[in-house]
Amino acid sequence: MEPVAVIGASMTPFGNREGEWILDLLAEAGVACLEDAGVEPGELEHLYVSNMASGEFEGQGGTMNALAHDLGAMPAYAARIDQTSSSGGAGIHAAWQSIASGASEMTLLVGGEKMTHRTTGESTDVIASITHPCEYKHGLTLPSFAGMTARHYLERFDAPRESLGKVAVKNHRNGVDNPNAQFRKEVDLETVLESPMVADPLRLYDFCPITDGSAALLLCPESVAREYTDDYALISGISGATDTHVVHERPDPTVMGGVVESGREAYEMSGYGPEEIDVAELHDMFTILEFLQMEGLGFAEQGESWQLVDEGYTDRDGEFPINTSGGLKSKGHPLGASGVAQAVEVYEQLVGEAGPRQVEADVGLCCNVGGFGNCVITTIMEAGV
Amino acid sequence: MEPVAVIGASMTPFGNREGEWILDLLAEAGVACLEDAGVEPGELEHLYVSNMASGEFEGQGGTMNALAHDLGAMPAYAARIDQTSSSGGAGIHAAWQSIASGASEMTLLVGGEKMTHRTTGESTDVIASITHPCEYKHGLTLPSFAGMTARHYLERFDAPRESLGKVAVKNHRNGVDNPNAQFRKEVDLETVLESPMVADPLRLYDFCPITDGSAALLLCPESVAREYTDDYALISGISGATDTHVVHERPDPTVMGGVVESGREAYEMSGYGPEEIDVAELHDMFTILEFLQMEGLGFAEQGESWQLVDEGYTDRDGEFPINTSGGLKSKGHPLGASGVAQAVEVYEQLVGEAGPRQVEADVGLCCNVGGFGNCVITTIMEAGV
Repeated sequence: MEPVAVIGASMTPFGNREGEWILDLLAEAGVACLEDAGVEPGELEHLYVSNMASGEFEGQGGTMNALAHDLGAMPAYAARIDQTSSSGGAGIHAAWQSIASGASEMTLLVGGEKMTHRTTGESTDVIASITHPCEYKHGLTLPSFAGMTARHYLERFDAPRESLGKVAVKNHRNGVDNPNAQFRKEVDLETVLESPMVADPLRLYDFCPITDGSAALLLCPESVAREYTDDYALISGISGATDTHVVHERPDPTVMGGVVESGREAYEMSGYGPEEIDVAELHDMFTILEFLQMEGLGFAEQGESWQLVDEGYTDRDGEFPINTSGGLKSKGHPLGASGVAQAVEVYEQLVGEAGPRQVEADVGLCCNVGGFGNCVITTIMEAGV
Repeated sequence: MEPVAVIGASMTPFGNREGEWILDLLAEAGVACLEDAGVEPGELEHLYVSNMASGEFEGQGGTMNALAHDLGAMPAYAARIDQTSSSGGAGIHAAWQSIASGASEMTLLVGGEKMTHRTTGESTDVIASITHPCEYKHGLTLPSFAGMTARHYLERFDAPRESLGKVAVKNHRNGVDNPNAQFRKEVDLETVLESPMVADPLRLYDFCPITDGSAALLLCPESVAREYTDDYALISGISGATDTHVVHERPDPTVMGGVVESGREAYEMSGYGPEEIDVAELHDMFTILEFLQMEGLGFAEQGESWQLVDEGYTDRDGEFPINTSGGLKSKGHPLGASGVAQAVEVYEQLVGEAGPRQVEADVGLCCNVGGFGNCVITTIMEAGV
């Protein structure tokens, strides 16, 4: 099978996009991505929209058809992919399959979500609808799972509370140099540790914000990519896996089975192992998740990832930079866009377009987490040659 | 590329499934499909849920993760596919790509929708959210498009009003023999022509009902299929296409561009032409749509399909049976399930499991229409050998 290439990438500014709606955001990212690659809308054969809940957030359905129309991409095939917070990663998976199966030779993926016009309570209700009612009816939301998991992790592995805060500090520092990040400001450890308590021991600055935004990728077979550009990336490995929908059924609360399984399969497909990954975007919806993904993906032994963060090993100028984009923590988390935006960052790192955030990288990894690890997609990309 | 086979199919009874919710329906069809094929949940590698709007109808998200859990299919990959009323067809397309790309060797697709607990007005609002606001705000819903198109068709092609009614009569007659159909009763032409006016000239019996239900298919490479059964079907051709999201921009109201384009590509991929199709399931959400699909797919010249229906050519005992299942008209139309249920009927016809509805068929076609032709999927299947 011919390798699948990424030849264009874009993201809108993430944040509060008041007065706009989902279709504006999708079109903005889609147009920018086509321009980035020098591809005309009429060349598109497939179009995927990654979006979790435009119906619930805005009463807007049919986003894939609307986007095909807005871009002038008809009669290109169009479908929407939902996998909750990992809808973006699932969109990459669908777009990859469209090329790998031979069904399409030019596929645009646009992920997006418009959320900030709703109250935090309303958004929380929409997000809670993806958890199992046997847990939700007892008050178990994603933040409460995160709090309990963090408490367990800190006590079991004798990790200081400060170590979680350092994830937030690092990712905010990285976000300063991302012109599209929602928060472009550094925070110091005291600010994190003294911010309001949300789900003990996690505080406000341990959580990503509610965000509007969109991101896009353009995929094609490698032979087609070469007709357009010398600077492309390849999708070397991609895999998704589910874990129990009922969180309390999992044997070890610090192990996300979907991370482990999707990572294992993506490594196998790519031929790379964790030691060969140069840069990674992990799903830091809650600071504790960065630890769990580092360990699940083999970047650290169980219970030891916090030490790497503590030592600066995962800083942008460290040995293994994680979340150079600022992560969900400072870049923001528009649900359907986030997995796509992770790949946009890795693509820019691989083709040397990351500007002040640039690190040396030939191989990069994204891990996009849906629910509380209910579904996870791991994608490994490498620079084209 | 190795051909993609269908080795199992199932559908729940369609109708009013009071007291149940979407997850019950999906699990019921999924379990039955696995049993039909003799495949264990642990053998699944990918799982797709076709569903348009469980969030809007029930406040339920994360259906793909919940279904993976309910079936015991973890760590199988799971995603939801939405393409409005053609979500089922889009699910077949996604499942086909998962096998054709080599990403999966055993993929379960389950389509479903739970709608009847909401009022007709509420459901209409959800469905209208997929049309373009520049038309919807002027009162243009899908039924009103259908009414105007029917009026135009009848006058332009000098077709009698009765010809539309005969589509309803035929499909109700076929539905009598489908144990899972919502309406298992014949209707006569007078009943159709005297039923309440909905969108002139279309009356109540020109419309499909609001329905709860689910349907499932199991796909794998042909070489794997042979390990399980001798009675399987192959997906010979599949393609989807979009048309303008703004309906009034289309050059000819009686031509659905998505039908024509997806049909053309599916024929090309399969190597079959319209004259080689033995049986077809068309998306008769409104009676007029059966005419437009017959013409768009090359089963009749433009403006002449009504004569074939009139002559009994498309009856179950006619030369070219259409909607042997009863169609959306009598079987019902649970949005995300309908495209899957079309393929269930064609599969059963091809493998000789259609019971009293059985016709002679080696090659069958399904056409699943999203929006008012905004997106269309055409699937051609043939009996395995």
